[in-house]
Amino acid sequence: MNGADLLCQTLLANDVNLCFANPGTSEMHFVAALDRTADMRCVLGLSEIVVTGAADGFARMAEKPAATLLHLGPGLANGLSNLHNARRASTPILNVVGDHATYHLPYDAPLASDIESLARPVSRWVGRAETADSVAVRTAEALAATRDGAEGHVSTLIFPADSAWSAVSGGVRPVRNKPAGARPPARENIEAACAALGDGAPVLLILGSDAMRSRALELGAIIAQATGATVLSENASRRIERGAGRVPLPRVPYPVDAAVSMLAPFRTAILVGATDPVAFFAYPGKRSRMLPDDCRIITAATLAEDPLLALEMIADGVVPAGRRPAPTLAPFELPPAPQGRITADTLGAAVAREMPEGTILVNEAITGGEPFSRYSMRARPHDVLGLTGGAIGCGIPLATGAALACPDRKVVTLQADGSGFYSLQGLWTQARERLDVVTVILANRRYAILRYELANVGAGAPGVNASRMLDIDDPAPDWVSLSKGMGVEATRVETAEALSDALASAMKRRGPVLIEAIMD
Amino acid sequence: MNGADLLCQTLLANDVNLCFANPGTSEMHFVAALDRTADMRCVLGLSEIVVTGAADGFARMAEKPAATLLHLGPGLANGLSNLHNARRASTPILNVVGDHATYHLPYDAPLASDIESLARPVSRWVGRAETADSVAVRTAEALAATRDGAEGHVSTLIFPADSAWSAVSGGVRPVRNKPAGARPPARENIEAACAALGDGAPVLLILGSDAMRSRALELGAIIAQATGATVLSENASRRIERGAGRVPLPRVPYPVDAAVSMLAPFRTAILVGATDPVAFFAYPGKRSRMLPDDCRIITAATLAEDPLLALEMIADGVVPAGRRPAPTLAPFELPPAPQGRITADTLGAAVAREMPEGTILVNEAITGGEPFSRYSMRARPHDVLGLTGGAIGCGIPLATGAALACPDRKVVTLQADGSGFYSLQGLWTQARERLDVVTVILANRRYAILRYELANVGAGAPGVNASRMLDIDDPAPDWVSLSKGMGVEATRVETAEALSDALASAMKRRGPVLIEAIMD
Repeated sequence: MNGADLLCQTLLANDVNLCFANPGTSEMHFVAALDRTADMRCVLGLSEIVVTGAADGFARMAEKPAATLLHLGPGLANGLSNLHNARRASTPILNVVGDHATYHLPYDAPLASDIESLARPVSRWVGRAETADSVAVRTAEALAATRDGAEGHVSTLIFPADSAWSAVSGGVRPVRNKPAGARPPARENIEAACAALGDGAPVLLILGSDAMRSRALELGAIIAQATGATVLSENASRRIERGAGRVPLPRVPYPVDAAVSMLAPFRTAILVGATDPVAFFAYPGKRSRMLPDDCRIITAATLAEDPLLALEMIADGVVPAGRRPAPTLAPFELPPAPQGRITADTLGAAVAREMPEGTILVNEAITGGEPFSRYSMRARPHDVLGLTGGAIGCGIPLATGAALACPDRKVVTLQADGSGFYSLQGLWTQARERLDVVTVILANRRYAILRYELANVGAGAPGVNASRMLDIDDPAPDWVSLSKGMGVEATRVETAEALSDALASAMKRRGPVLIEAIMD
Repeated sequence: MNGADLLCQTLLANDVNLCFANPGTSEMHFVAALDRTADMRCVLGLSEIVVTGAADGFARMAEKPAATLLHLGPGLANGLSNLHNARRASTPILNVVGDHATYHLPYDAPLASDIESLARPVSRWVGRAETADSVAVRTAEALAATRDGAEGHVSTLIFPADSAWSAVSGGVRPVRNKPAGARPPARENIEAACAALGDGAPVLLILGSDAMRSRALELGAIIAQATGATVLSENASRRIERGAGRVPLPRVPYPVDAAVSMLAPFRTAILVGATDPVAFFAYPGKRSRMLPDDCRIITAATLAEDPLLALEMIADGVVPAGRRPAPTLAPFELPPAPQGRITADTLGAAVAREMPEGTILVNEAITGGEPFSRYSMRARPHDVLGLTGGAIGCGIPLATGAALACPDRKVVTLQADGSGFYSLQGLWTQARERLDVVTVILANRRYAILRYELANVGAGAPGVNASRMLDIDDPAPDWVSLSKGMGVEATRVETAEALSDALASAMKRRGPVLIEAIMD
């Protein structure tokens, strides 16, 4: 047994049996170990932005970490932007980054770089397996660090080639890590929350992280109905349970003015697995924090604490036992069949109508996503995975990972075209693994968000030079060709009716398909 | 005038008039400034791996820095792997990385991250423009740091949004940086080199960096012919002048055994703009350094010193004035027209035959490149840009930048398919800018280098699981579709004759085209 075998076996001993990978020479012993470790499934991505984004999508749905296998500093670098999103989603991920053999490092070979410096901004834990024997302990440490109570983190284990190829000493065995359970919330914060909910002043409850799942949403609604508080979700969420039979929850708006105005009335904000809402960007003369300065913040559950337990405790505190109101759930109600041109509205309606129960909806629609979010509140029950860190290019990879986590569920990706370009290579992995993913490209042929933001920062209307940075219509990308080139069947639609037909047909079959929706 | 205007004007004052970009909200004031600064050309890349690789290709050919404009930490992260290659190529590049407004940073908004930690591994200089007024001085500092004598470096200037949008105080003007010239080599090292060349023991001269240009190659050949020394180039070179009428220079081989055996006879190695050759990777039981341990190293020119001057001084020291032999130059001799299947050999012959004089040949052929390098020694004179840092995905972006630097020259990219996937988005920029680039995809549908390396590290033959990490034939990518999807005309060829015809036709026209060469 060598260090690479020990790594595989330690991962398996800790229930990590899926590895997203793009290996290179320094990882070849890990690759060879795969042939001796049939239980470890290894999925290839054609660029590391796919590898890390897929690991994020997998872990959000499987509720356990995936591993990634990356090739030295540059391999890690290519995957960093989706690791940034994973960090903001509190997703547990273990990166295994191959490095040169320890004795080779001082020679500064061409691929050598400061891997630690690259890894630290996205990782809670960064370490090295200095010897083959140390692999078991270091891997278990790294895995332990992917969980801090309820919160997930990224760990990066640097794995020198000689630690992989050297024989392990007799008696060294895989180490099992005992995951820390979610921590209970602090009683005084729960008491403060209950007191605020009873004092008559306007209270806002902001839910985030795992408090976006059905049971937590219901508790939030119960508390609100019993006390008159308002409940909102964070602006960007890693995973929301939504649709008919669930509590429909509005979110804190993205535009600063709308958010500040919506939050202005509140004197107390209770955070449950959420953080104090701040503007995504700064704008001249606008606020950074969106709650009023005199609004008291009570953190009922930090990201590391159990948000469900916090909500149960608050509900117990504000409603006498046995007197809880039934939470108001969304009815099942689909919008009318959309007609005419494809707009954010008709597209949202078509997808909301056609997606089956249990769909995993990956939302990287950016400017085109709002109407869908509205319609989907009453659509068949589904999960929504969102863009948490603002690093575009998460959609196709997240869908890839989610489909591997939940092979029996349909995955639908709402993919803005500008963002989709960042990681279109993920379509190839969907084809290779025969994943049941429908990708809808919102082809408006521009970075529409930037036209909005250009005005928002007070920079005026774009001229010719500026427009060349905002529009991608020259040449107009052909997503049907791109998709076919990656091995995924594709079709182009230019009306809402054709889009509905294409969606209906895609929902009836299994396997990856892409629909390019040409938008106004 | 705001800070963004001042940045544009400072760049222009320092002869930086091309900016490769993928901007976001925090860079919108820079984008708006473009409308007021018509002399600044801004080229959009659909992913930052294209942006940074194109900057590298541009600077290698234009011999002056390009700027990049990147969106916060994640935008920089996506471009790091090609910045790693640029660092190894000693290419001068100025990255401008937008950041949140300074007062917004403490709120840890979703896109916030430790940009400095991400930038440092690839950058000689990392700094911030803390105020609008400081932009001129900081930009000039950053540009000065892109040059250390003969050596180029990457500088990363972090540019907070409020420094961009705030008004500049009266009297603040663009600052011009005086680039440091190449330093002269140390006389004692030149004298040591001359003495070694005269002492009768076998001497190796290794040329790198700018010593791969015609005049330097000729001086190397003169020295070798006069003294019996051997001349080699480094394994990977940023830019080589090659072909008929130039000195054909073999390189230090990639395989360790071949390199160690080739270098074994030498008792002295003289480095001119090159470093002590080390193995690209470590392999069990093989050496890291490839020169013999008892071989004396004389650094006649460090990377920062003038390699041409060093060679002139050595030539003067070893050959009496007026007695220099004429260097042996490569004759013009094309291989016979290749026939039959497309292999590395027939592909190399076809490209060597068809490329016109003055071609810029971007070589990311990986395993398929050796025969071309052989044939090209006697082909029409051309420049070769190579993969310097081992981070794959440089080919299409380098070609994009080189074509912008030299609009009157044909650019031909030899692009391995596995590596090409990393940055295929660059084809779109070639279409948008109507660049005169012929991309030849070496479609062997595997990471062929890794099959070689798996054996090389002693990990044995790949089984089913391992093969899934090395082969990309399921599904087989369709590069013609991918290219058309990006707006670049494309054709597929399956014989050497068809490849020759496609190349001949591509050479006759202008504008981007892709040829997918299906290889055995």
